[in-house]
Amino acid sequence: MQELLRSHIEKIVPLTDKEFELVISHFTVADFKRNHFIFEQGEKVKHAYYIISGLLKLTYVDDSAKEHIVSFAMEDWWESDFYAYFTQTKAAMSLKCLEETTVFCLSLNDYQNLCRDMPKMESFFLQKAHLGFIGSQQRILSLLTTNARERYEQLLQQYPALLQRVSKTQLAAYLGVSRETLSRLHD
Amino acid sequence: MQELLRSHIEKIVPLTDKEFELVISHFTVADFKRNHFIFEQGEKVKHAYYIISGLLKLTYVDDSAKEHIVSFAMEDWWESDFYAYFTQTKAAMSLKCLEETTVFCLSLNDYQNLCRDMPKMESFFLQKAHLGFIGSQQRILSLLTTNARERYEQLLQQYPALLQRVSKTQLAAYLGVSRETLSRLHD
Repeated sequence: MQELLRSHIEKIVPLTDKEFELVISHFTVADFKRNHFIFEQGEKVKHAYYIISGLLKLTYVDDSAKEHIVSFAMEDWWESDFYAYFTQTKAAMSLKCLEETTVFCLSLNDYQNLCRDMPKMESFFLQKAHLGFIGSQQRILSLLTTNARERYEQLLQQYPALLQRVSKTQLAAYLGVSRETLSRLHD
Repeated sequence: MQELLRSHIEKIVPLTDKEFELVISHFTVADFKRNHFIFEQGEKVKHAYYIISGLLKLTYVDDSAKEHIVSFAMEDWWESDFYAYFTQTKAAMSLKCLEETTVFCLSLNDYQNLCRDMPKMESFFLQKAHLGFIGSQQRILSLLTTNARERYEQLLQQYPALLQRVSKTQLAAYLGVSRETLSRLHD
C-alpha cells in the first residue's frame, strides 16, 4: 500500500528508502465505508487525501437543496476542499465515499513540516499544485465552451472506467443536467 | 516598478535586498499596446506574466468562431496559458491586452532556475499555485451552481473596478451570455 504512494511521488521526485520513511511518517491511513461522509459542508477539513482505493465525490448542495458534483476522485488522486484545508476555514463542499475507500491522510501541520524538512517534497507538491491548477483551468474552459453532450463524450473518452462505477444520477449531477436529459445523451 | 513585484512576493516570503536582486535578474519587462496579442491560440507560450499595470483577457475561440473569456487579469495578477507554459506545448488560448499593459515576463527556464537556486521562491510559487488552484475550484463551483445574473452580481461585488474597465461585449463573453441578456441583468 505504501508502495503506491511512493511510486506516485517518485513519478516527480526520486526518494531514497530513508527519505520515504520520513515522508510516510507524516501520513496516517483511514478506511471508510460506502456512503460515509469524510467531511460535510460547514465542518472543519482536517486532511488532504491521497486515494489508495475506492471512489469519492466532492459535492456542493445549494440553497434549494440541489446537489452539484464538483469532481469525482479515484485511485491515485488527491482530493479535499483545498480552500478550507489551506485556510483552516469551514468546508464549502462535502466529500463522500461512493465505494468502500482507503486513503492516506495528510494534516496541514504535517504538510507544512514535510515541506519545511524536505525541499524535495516541496518540489513535488509544487508540481502537483500546478497540475491541479491546470486541470481546473481545463474544466473551466470545458464548462464555458461545451454543452452537456460534449462533456459527456469527453468524460467517456478520458475516464471510461469511471462511467462503469457511478450511477446515472451521479453522472447527471456532475454534468449539470437532469436525469432525463442524460438518458437522451446516452442513446 | 520593481517595488511592486517585491512587495507582491514579500506578502508570502521576506527577501533581503541581495535576494531580490537575484530574483529580479530572472525577469524581463515588456510593454504592450491596447489590442496586442501577447500570444495566440496555436503559438508557443514563452512566459508567465506578472502584470504591473493594464488589463488582459485570456480567451478561447471555439470551432464556430465564438469567443469565450476564461479570465480577466489586471495589476498584481499572474496570467498565462499555464498548461502550454509548463508543458511547452502550443497555446489552447489567447492572451490579449484590453488596455496598454506593462508586465514582468518569466520564462520557464528562468522559473526553474529560480526555484532551484532559491528555495524561498519555490515556497512562494507553491503558495501562488495553491491560491490559483483554489480560485479555479471556486470558479468551477460558481459555473456549476449559479446562473448568469448571480455571476454578474458576484463579479460586481468582488471586482467593482473591473466593470468600469471592460466593455459590455467583453463582460457578456465572460459571463457566457448574449449581449442582450446582459442588458437585462444590468437593469
